[in-house]
Amino acid sequence: MPDHSTENPAANPAQDLADDRLHPLLRTRWSPMSFDAGHRNTYAETELLLEAARWAPSAGNSQPWAFIVGCRGDDTHQRLVKHLARSSARWAPSAGLLIANLAHRYVEDTDWEYSEFSQYDLGQAVAHMTIQAQALGLAARQFRAFDRDGLAAEFAVPEHWEVTTMTAIGRAAPTSASPTTAAAGDPSRERRPVLDLLWPAETP
Amino acid sequence: MPDHSTENPAANPAQDLADDRLHPLLRTRWSPMSFDAGHRNTYAETELLLEAARWAPSAGNSQPWAFIVGCRGDDTHQRLVKHLARSSARWAPSAGLLIANLAHRYVEDTDWEYSEFSQYDLGQAVAHMTIQAQALGLAARQFRAFDRDGLAAEFAVPEHWEVTTMTAIGRAAPTSASPTTAAAGDPSRERRPVLDLLWPAETP
Repeated sequence: MPDHSTENPAANPAQDLADDRLHPLLRTRWSPMSFDAGHRNTYAETELLLEAARWAPSAGNSQPWAFIVGCRGDDTHQRLVKHLARSSARWAPSAGLLIANLAHRYVEDTDWEYSEFSQYDLGQAVAHMTIQAQALGLAARQFRAFDRDGLAAEFAVPEHWEVTTMTAIGRAAPTSASPTTAAAGDPSRERRPVLDLLWPAETP
Repeated sequence: MPDHSTENPAANPAQDLADDRLHPLLRTRWSPMSFDAGHRNTYAETELLLEAARWAPSAGNSQPWAFIVGCRGDDTHQRLVKHLARSSARWAPSAGLLIANLAHRYVEDTDWEYSEFSQYDLGQAVAHMTIQAQALGLAARQFRAFDRDGLAAEFAVPEHWEVTTMTAIGRAAPTSASPTTAAAGDPSRERRPVLDLLWPAETP
């Protein structure tokens, strides 16, 4: 029987794989930076992605979210692409969908309704959308590399909404890495150990 | 053939059901307010819930989250229960797990590392945990009805972390409602229509 105990763990890509027992939609989820520019999302897929976000939970069922959805080739997509940073402009436009994720924020000196949990809840809605994408055989990458003010002006987004993040959703390029092929030491596949997530429960 | 066109839609619980094509983990997810006090989570289940959160995406892979996990009957659980509001104290302690969800926040005049997206990312991590709970046949309800300062003091949580929300996770009580049995007009099962989530894409 081979003895693996002396293997260098840093040379073993499996070190950064999620627990086998995790649900496949969570275990195999990852954020590609290379999308198949020949793939088009169907209208039904786009509808389901929004439906997934729609049914996410939120504080007091406030649903403090909205989305600007661009499909590659349409006018909204072109207007979103204009506001990408140079870094994201290299890869994000090739995904079938480009979505701006908006949170309903509070503004001082107004009486707009808002939720203290608008960003938290938007994060949940985008997570649900991402997991539905995964279920459709698609992949998603969220990013912040865009001109927030420019994009808000482009779509006349008022002060009490924030364009918090963007997501590119599409089919991962066949040549792109994956959780199982990612090279050891790929920083996006590293995670703090579970024990590090547990708050120490000692009495102060 | 019966003609349903004159049915009062408000009398039809199906109006607030999610699209059939949505992935079952998302479609059947809901937030019970009544848990089976006889059910205990296994250690392996608790481990998987944390593993689900651990593999959530985050801005720059910052992983700005931590969790205080109480299992019904243990010391941490008792200390968490002490800080519940009267409303949540009626139902949350009967769930197998009570978890405080912490976000790594910025504090002015310090040089703590932080993420602008700490709440957003915590929301995603809790969403992933919730979906893993669903995959284990469990259910989760997130809530804010607790004494945030009291809980932070109890567990010596410093200023640069925020106890953002709590989650009760366990087996839903057999008598509790569900997405399919919820009475028409249950406000927690209502959602804004999809068209309402789409930001109008007209040029200003």
